[in-house]
Amino acid sequence: MMVDFNRIIEHFRTTPIPDNMLQRGQLVLNEFLKPIRILFEQKAVPQQGWTDQQIAFLLETLSQMDTDKDQNASRVGEREARIASDLQLKVSGGFCHGVGRSGFLTAPQPKAPGGSIMYEITNYLARHTLKTFGLPNVKKAIVVPICTGMSLSLCLSALKPDWNSEEGSKKRTVLLPQVDHNSLLKALDFLGLNVKVVKGKVFEDAVRVPMEDIKNALDDSCFAVVSVTSFFPPREADDIKEISKFAKEKDLVHIIVNAYGVQSPEWMKLIQAGIDAGRVDAIIQSTDKNFLTPVGGAMIASPKKEIIEKISRTYAGRASASPVVNFLISMLRLGLKGYEGLIQEQQENHKLLAQKLLDFAEKVDERILDIFNPVAVVMTLDNLEKDQLYALGGALYNLRVTGPRVYDPTQKKFGTCTDNYPYSYIVMNAAIGCSQKDIITAVERLEKAYQQVTE
Amino acid sequence: MMVDFNRIIEHFRTTPIPDNMLQRGQLVLNEFLKPIRILFEQKAVPQQGWTDQQIAFLLETLSQMDTDKDQNASRVGEREARIASDLQLKVSGGFCHGVGRSGFLTAPQPKAPGGSIMYEITNYLARHTLKTFGLPNVKKAIVVPICTGMSLSLCLSALKPDWNSEEGSKKRTVLLPQVDHNSLLKALDFLGLNVKVVKGKVFEDAVRVPMEDIKNALDDSCFAVVSVTSFFPPREADDIKEISKFAKEKDLVHIIVNAYGVQSPEWMKLIQAGIDAGRVDAIIQSTDKNFLTPVGGAMIASPKKEIIEKISRTYAGRASASPVVNFLISMLRLGLKGYEGLIQEQQENHKLLAQKLLDFAEKVDERILDIFNPVAVVMTLDNLEKDQLYALGGALYNLRVTGPRVYDPTQKKFGTCTDNYPYSYIVMNAAIGCSQKDIITAVERLEKAYQQVTE
Amino acid sequence: MMVDFNRIIEHFRTTPIPDNMLQRGQLVLNEFLKPIRILFEQKAVPQQGWTDQQIAFLLETLSQMDTDKDQNASRVGEREARIASDLQLKVSGGFCHGVGRSGFLTAPQPKAPGGSIMYEITNYLARHTLKTFGLPNVKKAIVVPICTGMSLSLCLSALKPDWNSEEGSKKRTVLLPQVDHNSLLKALDFLGLNVKVVKGKVFEDAVRVPMEDIKNALDDSCFAVVSVTSFFPPREADDIKEISKFAKEKDLVHIIVNAYGVQSPEWMKLIQAGIDAGRVDAIIQSTDKNFLTPVGGAMIASPKKEIIEKISRTYAGRASASPVVNFLISMLRLGLKGYEGLIQEQQENHKLLAQKLLDFAEKVDERILDIFNPVAVVMTLDNLEKDQLYALGGALYNLRVTGPRVYDPTQKKFGTCTDNYPYSYIVMNAAIGCSQKDIITAVERLEKAYQQVTE
Amino acid sequence: MMVDFNRIIEHFRTTPIPDNMLQRGQLVLNEFLKPIRILFEQKAVPQQGWTDQQIAFLLETLSQMDTDKDQNASRVGEREARIASDLQLKVSGGFCHGVGRSGFLTAPQPKAPGGSIMYEITNYLARHTLKTFGLPNVKKAIVVPICTGMSLSLCLSALKPDWNSEEGSKKRTVLLPQVDHNSLLKALDFLGLNVKVVKGKVFEDAVRVPMEDIKNALDDSCFAVVSVTSFFPPREADDIKEISKFAKEKDLVHIIVNAYGVQSPEWMKLIQAGIDAGRVDAIIQSTDKNFLTPVGGAMIASPKKEIIEKISRTYAGRASASPVVNFLISMLRLGLKGYEGLIQEQQENHKLLAQKLLDFAEKVDERILDIFNPVAVVMTLDNLEKDQLYALGGALYNLRVTGPRVYDPTQKKFGTCTDNYPYSYIVMNAAIGCSQKDIITAVERLEKAYQQVTE
Repeated sequence: MMVDFNRIIEHFRTTPIPDNMLQRGQLVLNEFLKPIRILFEQKAVPQQGWTDQQIAFLLETLSQMDTDKDQNASRVGEREARIASDLQLKVSGGFCHGVGRSGFLTAPQPKAPGGSIMYEITNYLARHTLKTFGLPNVKKAIVVPICTGMSLSLCLSALKPDWNSEEGSKKRTVLLPQVDHNSLLKALDFLGLNVKVVKGKVFEDAVRVPMEDIKNALDDSCFAVVSVTSFFPPREADDIKEISKFAKEKDLVHIIVNAYGVQSPEWMKLIQAGIDAGRVDAIIQSTDKNFLTPVGGAMIASPKKEIIEKISRTYAGRASASPVVNFLISMLRLGLKGYEGLIQEQQENHKLLAQKLLDFAEKVDERILDIFNPVAVVMTLDNLEKDQLYALGGALYNLRVTGPRVYDPTQKKFGTCTDNYPYSYIVMNAAIGCSQKDIITAVERLEKAYQQVTE
Repeated sequence: MMVDFNRIIEHFRTTPIPDNMLQRGQLVLNEFLKPIRILFEQKAVPQQGWTDQQIAFLLETLSQMDTDKDQNASRVGEREARIASDLQLKVSGGFCHGVGRSGFLTAPQPKAPGGSIMYEITNYLARHTLKTFGLPNVKKAIVVPICTGMSLSLCLSALKPDWNSEEGSKKRTVLLPQVDHNSLLKALDFLGLNVKVVKGKVFEDAVRVPMEDIKNALDDSCFAVVSVTSFFPPREADDIKEISKFAKEKDLVHIIVNAYGVQSPEWMKLIQAGIDAGRVDAIIQSTDKNFLTPVGGAMIASPKKEIIEKISRTYAGRASASPVVNFLISMLRLGLKGYEGLIQEQQENHKLLAQKLLDFAEKVDERILDIFNPVAVVMTLDNLEKDQLYALGGALYNLRVTGPRVYDPTQKKFGTCTDNYPYSYIVMNAAIGCSQKDIITAVERLEKAYQQVTE
Repeated sequence: MMVDFNRIIEHFRTTPIPDNMLQRGQLVLNEFLKPIRILFEQKAVPQQGWTDQQIAFLLETLSQMDTDKDQNASRVGEREARIASDLQLKVSGGFCHGVGRSGFLTAPQPKAPGGSIMYEITNYLARHTLKTFGLPNVKKAIVVPICTGMSLSLCLSALKPDWNSEEGSKKRTVLLPQVDHNSLLKALDFLGLNVKVVKGKVFEDAVRVPMEDIKNALDDSCFAVVSVTSFFPPREADDIKEISKFAKEKDLVHIIVNAYGVQSPEWMKLIQAGIDAGRVDAIIQSTDKNFLTPVGGAMIASPKKEIIEKISRTYAGRASASPVVNFLISMLRLGLKGYEGLIQEQQENHKLLAQKLLDFAEKVDERILDIFNPVAVVMTLDNLEKDQLYALGGALYNLRVTGPRVYDPTQKKFGTCTDNYPYSYIVMNAAIGCSQKDIITAVERLEKAYQQVTE
Repeated sequence: MMVDFNRIIEHFRTTPIPDNMLQRGQLVLNEFLKPIRILFEQKAVPQQGWTDQQIAFLLETLSQMDTDKDQNASRVGEREARIASDLQLKVSGGFCHGVGRSGFLTAPQPKAPGGSIMYEITNYLARHTLKTFGLPNVKKAIVVPICTGMSLSLCLSALKPDWNSEEGSKKRTVLLPQVDHNSLLKALDFLGLNVKVVKGKVFEDAVRVPMEDIKNALDDSCFAVVSVTSFFPPREADDIKEISKFAKEKDLVHIIVNAYGVQSPEWMKLIQAGIDAGRVDAIIQSTDKNFLTPVGGAMIASPKKEIIEKISRTYAGRASASPVVNFLISMLRLGLKGYEGLIQEQQENHKLLAQKLLDFAEKVDERILDIFNPVAVVMTLDNLEKDQLYALGGALYNLRVTGPRVYDPTQKKFGTCTDNYPYSYIVMNAAIGCSQKDIITAVERLEKAYQQVTE
């Protein structure tokens, strides 16, 4: 009845445009549209990435289903997704109504059928992505327009005991293997939780939190344990499998902060082992750190559907669609092949970084620390004085190296995840999306900065 | 040294383009750029709204200051605002690094100088907007990329007692004059707070929560009171002045949920009276409901700077820039004149809606309820049966009237904010941004729907 | 088989999104798409204008039919519409293959089925526009990506005699009722034509070219006559009817230059009278002056199909699609209603301009010249000296009045279309698209400038 | 006085954003803007290509100098670059006033200072491009918004004798070494010229037009000779050097049609040799075929400034800016390095194509024709019957190979540039912008098509 895009050509049969030409046009158009059809049918990340034009076309089509686009509507609500400028259509991906309904993120929004479909698809893609890249048992995932830290608050809030009950009111403690990261600590503090930090200990070069210590820290007030995979060296990933078994045994909520861990099959394996062996309630990952989106979103996944349902009922209102749209764009643009390619490139870059830093370390009589981390490489800086270490950070900033961490444990413990880390060091990351050139120039500039501060 | 846009013409002095023509070009360009200069100088909402081109130019310029745009940077962090598609530049307003730093929203982000300036300006504009439209004593305001409900969680989390202290652990109750709104209740539940709801009572047509009852509800466990201005009839706004005095007297945190109240000078007056008379910690308003942005942001303001500072340290990570950018776009596009115009139009539309509904009410032997509300109008539907009331909602949906609420208190109390509201009714809103046509067609369609269900 | 946009919802039946919501989404989307279907069916200017989003969607869809978008093509031609930047997709409206084929503008281009459909539709719209706004007998029209002047060259080149034949070689003269306009004279010179200018004569205030003089100018070398409608006062429109009769009688090609005449039903009537009474081969109009497009296109129409066919075979290559797309955008954006509205507004503005200038003329003891022109108004400036007249032009430029012409026939005859025009004067235009504000401020500034030069 | 983009940071010194961060932002912004400054200073193609963001920023800035953007102007002309939709800003690159003034293309347009600067720069870049890539003696070049063919008309019209003079009227003949190309023939016919075609002759595999025959064809009616470089095999390039010497000796206007010749240093050498040795008036090249722009523009260059001046005064009006902007975009996007890279890639692709076709030719007992052409490769198809040759063309179209030419000289001579070409053949092009994949798949599909028609 309406525009049938595979029959546009019918309307031009009687014009001077010859039939075989019209058919060619239809064919080219259909190839453009085909991935959209397949996406609707399969609700899965495409094998091959789409073009920006295809993605824009999908977003335009879906957003034109929302009632704020309805020229014949009579709008007498207090919230009708009215906008002051067409620029805002871009900044919201066209989805002016945002996502969610009355504090239920994944609930369809009656004023936004297109936005609801968009969010539905995006969450399918989130699950598909995790299933494909290491977590086959994930049952449901959602993309939330809040950061990793706030996602941790959201998960714990959703899964907390009933504090208004007699019994629940005593369960306010969370076990945390030491993670020196402000956002995570703030996330726990957001809910006013009592945090029992289990201290990190030095094992040769690495910092780990012994399972025994975690077990010993348990008391009756605990209702949850939070574990991490990806983190800055010298802290290594937690023993997710053992923590999961422990959580199962002790009936603890177990949230895994997998901040930028999706990029590494090795970190993902740890999580899958945890799911297989014990209890994992939710796994949280950053969309920008793993999936090349602008900052602002996270993905929460679980091996249990009902847990995600619970979590999605906990956000207290309706939320911005932008971070959701940005994840959708990333996965459509990359496709499975593209993401595989990025992972492979990350692994090569990691090797390259390790080699380059090793070469430099040998020159200046330092060494590469032996710490398990598929993204970062750490080199000691023990030959530098306190002042030089400080100056090195500044020199790198001026040389436009972004992201390295120069650390002097005698000046500041926070960040080492332990009380007595013995080495000064610099960390660099070969994270997903990083280029060879980034790594090569970063190490070159490190050499230059090192010379500057040691001259 | 760099491009000096007011000297572009110098480079063309020796070309065949005559001088007076170059000067004209420069003059026109300078008028285009002038508002940007004034914005940087005054950090205030412009009198006259800008064009979309000017806004886009500002956003482009600022976002080109962020390090993810630096072609000579070496990026070796795990978070570098890498993106998969240029479409994401649009969906993030160009600010791929988002806003905030390690759980401190308004902290400058070293990788995003442009984004930091953008956020800084936006918050100045937020404060200026509130000062201009009714709250001269606001000292600081921030735009947050979360909804009104989550903003309430954020404020209460920031201002909660230290629950890990002996004394603090007993203070977990919030007083809430009955507001039947899921998002607000979820916001309180998010933190696991004990909520003491003070019931609404019927006063002729209106529902109010008597000050006396609030006072009586107070006990030692209370640390905060939440009040509301804009809400759906029959619930009227709270007596903000008295609650503020009470909060001051009893040393309670006082948060005002002013969801869509900025549009009405009358609601704003209530708040200002509260600030003058007693204690107000924070006032929360929706950006989309008041300022014509896509859904996803809120503005939090306070008469005390340090409170906003505290709140901005409570978000546990870095956040999406999109809702912030959308508010900035709105205020630049509208300007003070534009916003004044919208307020005036809202007031006229409210009168029009009242008149149209009155006309219809008289035809069908119903009446307009006498409830103070500068946005909504309520008409009784007492002549309709239960089934007809239900059918009326569906009929309006099919006639593409979005936003009306048809209410049958015998079927569902939640929403009336009281236990025994005596009338069935329909609410319609003449909210900011609504058009005359919306109102006229909405009432016409109501008549049509009414006929359908009564035939 | 492919994406069926009116069945998107089918794919979401099994998701949590309820049916009635999906149907609403489909309905809103279908209303968005409906005008596209109607355009394809009717190939006519829509009654109501479209939104920019709808136009962009149409252009995107059609341009995705061209083979340069085909990701599976093997391109081994020397011209394949490859581009260096995606920005060029915008600047070409997406139609990188341009329009035409081997020197036949309207021929379908096998590599560009979408572009061919786009051009086909645009030309239908061109004809429909002219038929609706005054020329019911136009049989065919094309939009060409060249200016009005070059269109005149194109028409005369297409319709010239065979100069390589014995007889044809003697026919190289064109009759031209005096029109002091460089572009037109250059257009004739482009072909190396012999131009016989029939001088304009003063009739009270107006300049006209007497029919008798045109007739007398005819000799055996003439093969064509060019007439004009819209022109700057004091020159009035030609007597199109009589020239058409004369062209028919003498077997002369007759081209009407209707530069900005479509905006005025009065000028259009002159042309229609010509078509009815005698011979009119082609009518040329500017797209930017009549239809609010950027500069660069013209529309050529004819009461005889085969003439347009001939003309479209005369452009020696393939041409830019941009001017064609710009006309298409204008007519879809405006719709018939919008264009009618603009015409009406033009008429009101013309009256306003006449009144405002009359008021001023009376103040300074000048008068409005009595010259038939539905767009321009002329006021004498006889009280100003030579130097003051010159200064007045400069003063107006500095006051940012664009488009007025200050004329001193004693200094420069060219422009008056006669040898002895007696008055100094200023012309201002209330052309289509002009605003009330333009007119009011222009006359105010004229007063100011007048004061400046007479002080 | 106005916005000084290199002092944005000054306005934020007093905010919480630290100084070193502001400086970093300024530095990143300045690097973004730096190429714009260099462009204004040097008026030359940049070494390194720009980003799309930089190009868009330049276009936006310049177009904001045009008076149609002046919000304080009073517009009372009949042409004021008013537009119906903001989409038209994109389709015109923002330059709604087009280029040129009253039939003088390169004349500054008082209403469009920005557009005038844009066109000025573009023409500098055109000259610089040609000087860099093979024609050091070019003194001036312009980009015209018409095709190669119409540019030939334009040049010949500008340089034709005065046909209204006694002597000039006898000079209406142009010598044309046979070129079987409709657009060129139409270009000559456009002006009603008498064309004396000098027949091509077969020299082994190639078709050439002997210099002797050209000389013999000269008679008193000739005023010009047109020569070609790039053309489809079997026709080889003309002996430009000898024709130039001949043109100088005989005082003939000499126009070189260098349609897609800029991509090949070998063709460019021929032209430079002509300039050095004799008379060359103008060299015409397609912008889309050489510089990866959408169809619609050409570049005309000359070793004599005044000739380009003359030509630019011949276009009879104002013209579309789009093709000009598209050339500007290409050269900024590519930079000299990018263009060099494309030339190199073209040469490699040409070798690859030759090898692939040779391999296939050996399989099917055909051979590669020995014809000088740096872009195309020709293979005989002598083993195919008439019907099979026809079928082969269709089969390739269906297999989505665009651009190959299958030729059967017994069916159609036009295209071979001679009367008796002995071989059937297929031509494929490895033109600039072509990819390896294009070539590999094209030959694969040729094999497939060949099998289809021979089975």
